[in-house]
Parts: sequence; C-alpha cells; structure tokens
Amino acid sequence: MDDGTPVRLRLDLGYDGAGFAGWARQPAQRTVQGVIEEALGRALRLDPPPSLTVAGRTDAGVHARGQVAHVDLAADLYARLGDALPRRLAGLLPSDVRIWRVAPAPDGFDARFSALSRRYAYRVCDNPMGVDPLRRHDVLWHQRPLDIARMDEAAALLRGEHDFAAFCRRREGATTIRELLRLAWERDASGYAVATVEADAFCHSMVRALVGALLMVGDGRRDTGWPAQVLAARVRDSAVNVAPAHGLTLEEVRYPDAAGLALRARQTRRVRTLAADA
Amino acid sequence: MDDGTPVRLRLDLGYDGAGFAGWARQPAQRTVQGVIEEALGRALRLDPPPSLTVAGRTDAGVHARGQVAHVDLAADLYARLGDALPRRLAGLLPSDVRIWRVAPAPDGFDARFSALSRRYAYRVCDNPMGVDPLRRHDVLWHQRPLDIARMDEAAALLRGEHDFAAFCRRREGATTIRELLRLAWERDASGYAVATVEADAFCHSMVRALVGALLMVGDGRRDTGWPAQVLAARVRDSAVNVAPAHGLTLEEVRYPDAAGLALRARQTRRVRTLAADA
Repeated sequence: MDDGTPVRLRLDLGYDGAGFAGWARQPAQRTVQGVIEEALGRALRLDPPPSLTVAGRTDAGVHARGQVAHVDLAADLYARLGDALPRRLAGLLPSDVRIWRVAPAPDGFDARFSALSRRYAYRVCDNPMGVDPLRRHDVLWHQRPLDIARMDEAAALLRGEHDFAAFCRRREGATTIRELLRLAWERDASGYAVATVEADAFCHSMVRALVGALLMVGDGRRDTGWPAQVLAARVRDSAVNVAPAHGLTLEEVRYPDAAGLALRARQTRRVRTLAADA
Repeated sequence: MDDGTPVRLRLDLGYDGAGFAGWARQPAQRTVQGVIEEALGRALRLDPPPSLTVAGRTDAGVHARGQVAHVDLAADLYARLGDALPRRLAGLLPSDVRIWRVAPAPDGFDARFSALSRRYAYRVCDNPMGVDPLRRHDVLWHQRPLDIARMDEAAALLRGEHDFAAFCRRREGATTIRELLRLAWERDASGYAVATVEADAFCHSMVRALVGALLMVGDGRRDTGWPAQVLAARVRDSAVNVAPAHGLTLEEVRYPDAAGLALRARQTRRVRTLAADA
C-alpha cells in the first residue's frame, strides 16, 4: 500500500434519532453525519473532517441499529491509527451514536451504491393503557387495537415492484419506482405490532406513509384493499397519515459478496439519479 | 357493598426512573409516587389526593416494569368511576409512568406487606464499543469484558439467608437479614449480561451493591470468593462500588394466592419494622 493512496473504511453504526435533525449534515443543526464527522476529525486530527457517505439518509427522529457508511482516508493516516480508531471514536462520540465496527472495505464497496436493500422495522404498541416507558422512545403508541391479520392482508397487495409516488412526500424529479421486497406485520415477544419493510431503496417518507396507511386498516378505519387503491392512483393521498418518526428504525443494509460489489455499484449509479433519496 | 366502605385497589405499573427522584413522595421533587397520586387526585377529583402504598420503594433513577401499589378509595367513588379509571389515568399520566391495571384487590391484600418477593433485573453491556443507543437508558455500559461463569460462581456463594449488612448503605436501625432467593447471571438475546435478583425484601442499595461487587469479579479485578468474604465481614466495604441506578429494573412482585394473603401480611408486619426499606 503506497502512502497517500486512499483507504476506504466501512463503518457499521447505530443511533437514537431523538436528538438529531436526521442523518444529513446541515448548518447549525445537530445531525448524525455532523456529529460522526466531527468525532472522526478529532480522532484523526483532520480539519476539515472527512466526509461520510451513508446507505440510508434517515429523517429527523428516525433511529438506526444497522446503518452503514463509508469514509476515504489517506493510507498512511489509517496505517498509523487503524486499530486504535474504533476505541478512540467510542470515547469521543456521545452515547446516542455508536460505531460498532470500523474496517477496510472490500474493493468496489460503496455504502450507498453497493447496497442491495435496506430493511426497516416500525414498532407499534396498541395497548390502550400505553407503551412501556422504557420503550417509549422507539415504539409508537396507537390507542386503538390493531388487527395484524388485516394489516398483513393489505400489505401483501403492496409488495413487489410498483410506482410508489402515492406514498412519497416529494418526487424530487427522480423515479418513484421501487421494489418492495418485504412488507409484513407480526407480534414480537413484547406483544408489539412490528412491520418489517425491505426494499432496494425508499423514497422520502415512504416507509412511514406505508405504515400510516396500514395502521388505518389495522384499527378498522379503512378496508384491506384501500392501501392498494391509493398505490394505484399514483398521486399523494392526503388521507394517508405519515406515521411518526420515533417508531421507525433502520435495522439492516444488505450488500452483495465481494465479487458482486463493484458491478452493483456501477448498475445502481446508472439507474438512479443523485437526487433520489436512497 | 355499602357506600363509604373503602375499596382497596391494586395498581400494576411501570416507569422510566430517569426523570424521577425515586418512588417516595418528597417536597419539591418529581417522584413517581407524587406524579401518580396527583393523577389519581385529578381523575377522582380528590384534594388532597389519596395515598399510595408500594411494594418496592425504588431509588432515584431505578426503573420498574412490574411495580405494584395499592390505594384505598370510598366504595361509592369507585362505583361511579371504576371502569373509566384506567383509561382516564392513562390520559393524565406522563409517558414515563404507565399504570397497566387497576382492579379491586382480594381481601387481605397489602401491596407492601403481602409481597412474598421482589424480583429485579440488572442489565450490563460489555461491548467495548458501547451500548445500543436505544437501550442506553436501562442498560449499563461496562467497558471491560465480563466472564458470566465467574460472576455466577461468585453469586452462588451469596444465595440463601444471610445478614447482608455489608451490602446495605444504611442500616436504619432495622434488620439486614434477608433471604436471597435468586442471584444469577446470564446473557440475554441482545448479548447483555443480565443479573436476576430476587429476595423476600431488600435493604437500601443492596441489589446495586451486590451487582457492583460481582462486576469486579466478572472483569477479573477480584476473585470469585471475594463477594462472599465481604458478606461474611458484615460491615460495609468501601471497595464495593454501588452500580449505577439506570441498569436496574424492578421486574416483578410476587404475592400469595387469595387464601395466603391476609396471613402473609400479618406475618410480615410482625417481623419487619416500618423503618426497613422493602
């Protein structure tokens, strides 16, 4: 490895979204990207700090347990610090952001463009008495009882490749065609209703709009066929409430094995414009 | 049921201890007892509000998932409001306290004196990178790796009936003899080290002092026989660090069946002075 050749590092991380104005760096706002870049700058003594590229640009208040980002560093800098970097970052970061792993990425890896899919969980407590206070930060309280079977029936009609314009807050000039690989509801061990939502990518507020529509089916306000009707109309429907951010957690980003990485990044870059929110 | 005859209600409840100066009502402090009594007063239009008796008077910062309390109300008042009371309380209480159930208690029930045992969980994350930010409110971060088998070996020597004076912060003039029914460590599904601690009753800061001693065994700073040596000395040992409050949760209070209730309350009242912290 020559000095000066950049090394790409993959960062696996998680955060409590409550204290952040979302992932993306913004002036005068506390953002996850801003906080991590600042810690990296201090750990590496780099000013300005290095820039991160992320798999899923989460909105304000949305959490992550399996977020992935990458950063490019000069090889000599990384060689000097490498093994000490994760621990040093653990000491510099606030407790609402944690970097679990820092390691050189395989050739062709791009946190955003190599990703095959993003998997989110949306958690809802429908106990009329409320949510366990220790879970109130990542579980939505829905005061009406939910019928999981109905929600799952409605969800089945939304799976697959569709134009999700009806569930996207802004079109941003980019395509709203997405492949919804998973959308399913089940009760977890705590009795919460949990939606697992996985797609190649999501447009802005799409997961929360899908959840918002399905909650209206689950509590009986709408028929099971209604979300599919909204989808088919391909225009934003004001009857769909975007579910609150704090119930949503990015759980996992999936990548191809080493051989498929570079290929995947080239494909994705071609088909998706930079304006699309991954 | 005659009008005016009091009805004893059992309340099952939980809270996030972070925002409270403990359970017990104190002037000019936000306490769990104070907040619930105020909500009861508003729900029932009683001023002053009724007083609660609790099973486990938790310290500042300690959480509860299975706390139990009782309150005595005039029967006519309860008859008027009964079924509406739980929902009304759910609306009046802040989200860091939840009352799961309000129901007339069986004859002879006393939340404090009928209790057979209190069960606590203490949760520790020993990942050197930190705790999942979404769990940082109820899981302690211990930066050194823990050997669960060693901790469990040390714990076995503490189980049973002993004078726990060495692990009590203040004697308060009361007996410090307790029966430790369970004290065991295991890894949960998240990989956290979890101590299950159950006793007939605990003296002040006892669970956290036991956990503090066992953490020193788990990370290799002390031998497995050390906590039992501390116990045998029967005096508070300054080498024992009381573990932080936020890792501790009161999970369950056990009561006898209806037949055993009154008998149990009479027994307990005899053997324990009012000054002892249950």
